[in-house]
Amino acid sequence: MKNKGLDSGLPRPDAVAKACGKSVYLPDLKFPGMLHAVVVSSPVASGVIKKIDISEALKVSGVKAILTAENAGINNKIGMIYDDQSLLAEDKVRMVGDRLALIAATSLEAAMEARDRMVIEIDEMPGVYDIRTALNDGSPKVHESGNLFKEFFVKRGDFEDAVVKADVVIEDDYTIGGQEHAYLETQGTVAFPVHDGSYRIYSSTQCPFYVRFRVARMLGIPHNMIRVIQTVTGGAFGGKEDYPDEPAMCAAALCKATGKPVRLVLPRVYDMQCSTKRHSMAIKHKLYATKGGKILGVKAEILVDAGAYAGLSTIVAERANTSAVGPYSIGAVDVHTKVIYTNNLFGGPYRGFGAPQVGAVHESQIDRLAMTVGIDPIKIREMNGLSRENPVFSSGEVLPQAHIYQDMLKLMKEKSNWDDHYNAKGKVDGYWREGIGLGTTIYGVNLHWGGSRLDRGASLVSILNDGSVSLAVGVTEMGQGNLAAMRTICANAFGISEELIRIEEVDTALVPDSGPTVASRSVMSGGNAVIDGVKQLNERLCSVAAKILKVESDTVICRNGQFISPKTEETTPWKKVVEMLYLKKINPSAIGWYRSEDRIYDPETGQGRAYAFYSFGGHVVRLRVDTQTGAIDVLETTAVHDVGQIINLVGIEGQVQGGTVQGLGWAIMEDFRMHKGKMLNAGFTDYSIPSSMDVPAVMNMAFIEEPEPQGPFGAKGIGEPSFISVGAAVLNAVSNALGRDISVLPLTPEKVIEIITEKH
Amino acid sequence: MKNKGLDSGLPRPDAVAKACGKSVYLPDLKFPGMLHAVVVSSPVASGVIKKIDISEALKVSGVKAILTAENAGINNKIGMIYDDQSLLAEDKVRMVGDRLALIAATSLEAAMEARDRMVIEIDEMPGVYDIRTALNDGSPKVHESGNLFKEFFVKRGDFEDAVVKADVVIEDDYTIGGQEHAYLETQGTVAFPVHDGSYRIYSSTQCPFYVRFRVARMLGIPHNMIRVIQTVTGGAFGGKEDYPDEPAMCAAALCKATGKPVRLVLPRVYDMQCSTKRHSMAIKHKLYATKGGKILGVKAEILVDAGAYAGLSTIVAERANTSAVGPYSIGAVDVHTKVIYTNNLFGGPYRGFGAPQVGAVHESQIDRLAMTVGIDPIKIREMNGLSRENPVFSSGEVLPQAHIYQDMLKLMKEKSNWDDHYNAKGKVDGYWREGIGLGTTIYGVNLHWGGSRLDRGASLVSILNDGSVSLAVGVTEMGQGNLAAMRTICANAFGISEELIRIEEVDTALVPDSGPTVASRSVMSGGNAVIDGVKQLNERLCSVAAKILKVESDTVICRNGQFISPKTEETTPWKKVVEMLYLKKINPSAIGWYRSEDRIYDPETGQGRAYAFYSFGGHVVRLRVDTQTGAIDVLETTAVHDVGQIINLVGIEGQVQGGTVQGLGWAIMEDFRMHKGKMLNAGFTDYSIPSSMDVPAVMNMAFIEEPEPQGPFGAKGIGEPSFISVGAAVLNAVSNALGRDISVLPLTPEKVIEIITEKH
Repeated sequence: MKNKGLDSGLPRPDAVAKACGKSVYLPDLKFPGMLHAVVVSSPVASGVIKKIDISEALKVSGVKAILTAENAGINNKIGMIYDDQSLLAEDKVRMVGDRLALIAATSLEAAMEARDRMVIEIDEMPGVYDIRTALNDGSPKVHESGNLFKEFFVKRGDFEDAVVKADVVIEDDYTIGGQEHAYLETQGTVAFPVHDGSYRIYSSTQCPFYVRFRVARMLGIPHNMIRVIQTVTGGAFGGKEDYPDEPAMCAAALCKATGKPVRLVLPRVYDMQCSTKRHSMAIKHKLYATKGGKILGVKAEILVDAGAYAGLSTIVAERANTSAVGPYSIGAVDVHTKVIYTNNLFGGPYRGFGAPQVGAVHESQIDRLAMTVGIDPIKIREMNGLSRENPVFSSGEVLPQAHIYQDMLKLMKEKSNWDDHYNAKGKVDGYWREGIGLGTTIYGVNLHWGGSRLDRGASLVSILNDGSVSLAVGVTEMGQGNLAAMRTICANAFGISEELIRIEEVDTALVPDSGPTVASRSVMSGGNAVIDGVKQLNERLCSVAAKILKVESDTVICRNGQFISPKTEETTPWKKVVEMLYLKKINPSAIGWYRSEDRIYDPETGQGRAYAFYSFGGHVVRLRVDTQTGAIDVLETTAVHDVGQIINLVGIEGQVQGGTVQGLGWAIMEDFRMHKGKMLNAGFTDYSIPSSMDVPAVMNMAFIEEPEPQGPFGAKGIGEPSFISVGAAVLNAVSNALGRDISVLPLTPEKVIEIITEKH
Repeated sequence: MKNKGLDSGLPRPDAVAKACGKSVYLPDLKFPGMLHAVVVSSPVASGVIKKIDISEALKVSGVKAILTAENAGINNKIGMIYDDQSLLAEDKVRMVGDRLALIAATSLEAAMEARDRMVIEIDEMPGVYDIRTALNDGSPKVHESGNLFKEFFVKRGDFEDAVVKADVVIEDDYTIGGQEHAYLETQGTVAFPVHDGSYRIYSSTQCPFYVRFRVARMLGIPHNMIRVIQTVTGGAFGGKEDYPDEPAMCAAALCKATGKPVRLVLPRVYDMQCSTKRHSMAIKHKLYATKGGKILGVKAEILVDAGAYAGLSTIVAERANTSAVGPYSIGAVDVHTKVIYTNNLFGGPYRGFGAPQVGAVHESQIDRLAMTVGIDPIKIREMNGLSRENPVFSSGEVLPQAHIYQDMLKLMKEKSNWDDHYNAKGKVDGYWREGIGLGTTIYGVNLHWGGSRLDRGASLVSILNDGSVSLAVGVTEMGQGNLAAMRTICANAFGISEELIRIEEVDTALVPDSGPTVASRSVMSGGNAVIDGVKQLNERLCSVAAKILKVESDTVICRNGQFISPKTEETTPWKKVVEMLYLKKINPSAIGWYRSEDRIYDPETGQGRAYAFYSFGGHVVRLRVDTQTGAIDVLETTAVHDVGQIINLVGIEGQVQGGTVQGLGWAIMEDFRMHKGKMLNAGFTDYSIPSSMDVPAVMNMAFIEEPEPQGPFGAKGIGEPSFISVGAAVLNAVSNALGRDISVLPLTPEKVIEIITEKH
């Protein structure tokens, strides 16, 4: 385990601009003649629209357009996958924030005044706010088709047999909360009309190709009439996967109506209420095991709160479904996942994509089993976990990397001083009780089988006349360090200094549709596409270098900026070879391409190759609980990740630190206070996320580097795994501190006090 | 000769925006916080700088930077090919308009006020203004190295033998004037600082890759830190080949100094004085012929007035040198071309690139020979011109297309009713005298051997998810119809409707360096690059279509948006095949590439393969001359061009109309009134170009379509040939009308009166 990384230690490409406040985020964009837009939205979560009267609003000076479903002249059905959503509400509203009208004016003030002058009447209707009763007869229907939108399954082995043979059953009904993405800048777009009738969309997004697709469809024009440029994106975490298309469509519709550039930036409170959230889930989970602690079967029912529209909830649910058993090799599995419409917050992608919610549950369950049968939590994971001997995942796949799970457990134990701390469990210091807990996960890197048709990546690699390299990729930088990783991969693939490489902003005109930047796939798909582009150019360069070196083309390699013939040991520098490439007028650019392998999977049983490959991750959290106030103080975290090959060491450490702290926020602090679909604590005054003061004093981390054949230079992905098992570790640590079973997240002080009080 | 074109008749892509005034030209560009720049320039053409004091100017409110050679902190040597030019004058000034300082301020007014407050002292020195005496001993030296900058030669056959054998010698010393490009918007740039420290340069240019190169070199940064975007360019004609780099460098230097976007747009009078012009030339030309009219030898001495800096004068001179003999097959040739520094206007590229100047001369000479030996001007060209029997050009090349010259003469004769009009020569109608004249040319398409290392082209062809196509090319639209031609070529290469294709603006980030858009090479190099990109994609599409059609991949073709198996006659539509391409995750984009063949040429003798291939062009002009006022009234023009294959019929007709009218302007109206290097008639008040009132009532045209193997679908190029022989035809027609030898262009009314008066 060398654990060093391939990068040269250069600051990441976006470091200086970000540190100096020079980065241009979407709200910084201004264009002459630009109009400002606001959304007029529903204050209630369920109702029938009786009246939208724009006549008084239109009289406000500076107002250039007010669009409603009636007059917008667009394709109003805008659902991400399923057409259950409208850009502008037609007859009903189904969530707080449903758009009733869009206003564009010469100033934000004028637009807001017009909004105040709108005359709107909505008859409020009973709504669906409890996921556990949403499917009951007599529950109001969010959509005509009923509240059960979609189901997923894992069915494996002889489940009845496991039930019969089991000595021990561990069972509970968990309530796992959602989470706000809390990105730096709120959702926003500038739609810019190009003189040839096309549109340029500037978007704070992870997925510019989604924006292109949905804006083109909404306007009813060919895709080549839309060009999307990603602006500097200050964090995304899934929150800028699909949702950015909505402000983009709003701005584009207003741009079409006015012929002017239109900027729409959502106010924070509206953004928090309306944009997608990590899904709240209700999860019934049963473990069937022997007295000796061997798990025979797992049964789970997962209710996913989609909110009023499908969005990407089915995709999230698919990963939750596949992840419900965890990194264990279990003979009998019966998972049933239901995606349910409610009038609550709009569920969507969020770092971990459903895995953290089910992860908290399967890791709590195995800890309870450990307690019940009297086996150490690490030991019981070693027994039941994937291993060289037991390499079969719940999808039925025999995992070539199964043994890494066992390596990881060893490292977790060692790095966290598990034995010392676990034996001191429940340690008392005044009102404080100390505890330690762990969580582990198996993560299917890249898109699930269900989305694998999008699993492609592209690059545009160009060697310029002076030997500098211009690189464009289709995967986006959203703070995770993608630019640095792509630069490192490009430099290593060429065999030249990172300093020669500059990466262009992501622009749909530069590279083919590379799919979404999600699922920890940017390094894998982007990196492989960069390597492919470089490979094409290296062939051309080596043929030129071979002529200079007077050797055969296929014997030449480039290292440290020198083309070398290992046979003759003669060298010729990069710059000279590039000069010659130009003199010979050889094409100095290439489109690099990557596609994942085709795979077979049965959605009825969840059996087959669900993901391209897997990685493991685990967190140990040591904390203390104030039994008087319910406050939790995290003392130390230990993260171990199986990353294949570190591309950029600082970057990967940053991801683990960020994932851990964001995970702690989710597990301890972040809580939606809801009333009839309305978030009572929208805005950062009342919705708390971790500040620098909440970062644990000690954050250990370790990486297992066993190169993955499908990854670029063997790299896997780290974005999501760095988050997934944190919640589980917190839940188990608090349980360990208090000596109580816990079946809820987040563990806010109020909730902790409730647990202590209820169960005493 | 089918003469129809490959296009579908769709309006050109830029038609609507241009017709509706929606096109965004460089001066229309605005950015928040943008500064406005002015150039402080020398009022004298030759002098020593004694003082540049910026202190008072700096006090003007709003002024953000004043740069001089002393404080600019740039690489000040900026010559296009030779480093004889500075961005900011250091010790001497060599032309009116040499830059002394650059000012950026928050308003144009503030910048202009600062300019007025600059304290500048220049000691005026004697200058070089007469090209015929510039090389004399005792002439002042523009540069230390002397006024003869560069020489070119054509040496062929036994010249002494031709002299001995000749019965007739036709000899004169011609003075051929320059020309202002008179593009729609003046030269200009916006330099925009990108947050990562790179620069985006918006430029009204033909050659964005030149701009990138020179701005990067001037700033001393890698090329990948400069991205150049061509703004809509309203005519260029060579005037936006190299010169746009100069305002771009000025704006970029100010952008670097201030960290703000900087716009520099040259005022028309300054632009006209300082930007490059068609070269004035003095040409001594001798024809040695037999009594029977057979030309035995040609001797020419061409003096090219470069102005104070080399710029691209050597490249223009190279084409003048190669073109000096014209489309004739002549045994003995002795051409000597001299590029001479003066303190006059800055010579540079202009439609025809030196060929129109020498063309006026060789066509006047052959007409004089015709008169002398009593043979019809067309007949004498048939005798001496290139033909199947006499296919050897003055470069020594045996031209496979030589016979087209003879076909062209026949068509010119027929379409112009030559015999009728020529026999009526000198027809009198009051003060009016009618005349007819013709000019012919051979045009080497694409770059001369000397520039052939730049002779490459690139495209980025992307098929989008919905079957629409996004195309980017490295050759630029400057009004000539490049967008339409590229769209037609792309659609024909794919076998789909033009409506599916949209072309992106030219942006150095999109495509590799495609060389300059000059030398009528956009269709050839851009078109071939498009075809190459499409070919790569067609292979992928056909393999997909073949699977659908259940046939072998190489049997499938696409026509009219349907993939067809000619064997089975089954079809599958484009859109379905694209859908399948996406489902199979096959790379939907390709970089198309083109490079011209390598060729061998000896610059010492002008023998070898000078150009990739050749085309012929000819004009007949029928006009009348008012012998009282000297005014010329053009009655009818006839243009015949050898174009290989018409891509876009309306486009090629437009080029011929435009080239003809611009040629008439040059030959009849456009005249630089100079005093010590200063243009006295700068601005359109005093420098007249043709208006719609000056367009001849009858403009005949005909095209010869004999596909050129190196051209896309057989196309050649039309931009320059459409201009070249107009001046010659006018000169000969006036000579024909007045019965006088003429050795000067332009034939302004004053000049015509002078001719009439002098020679009576």
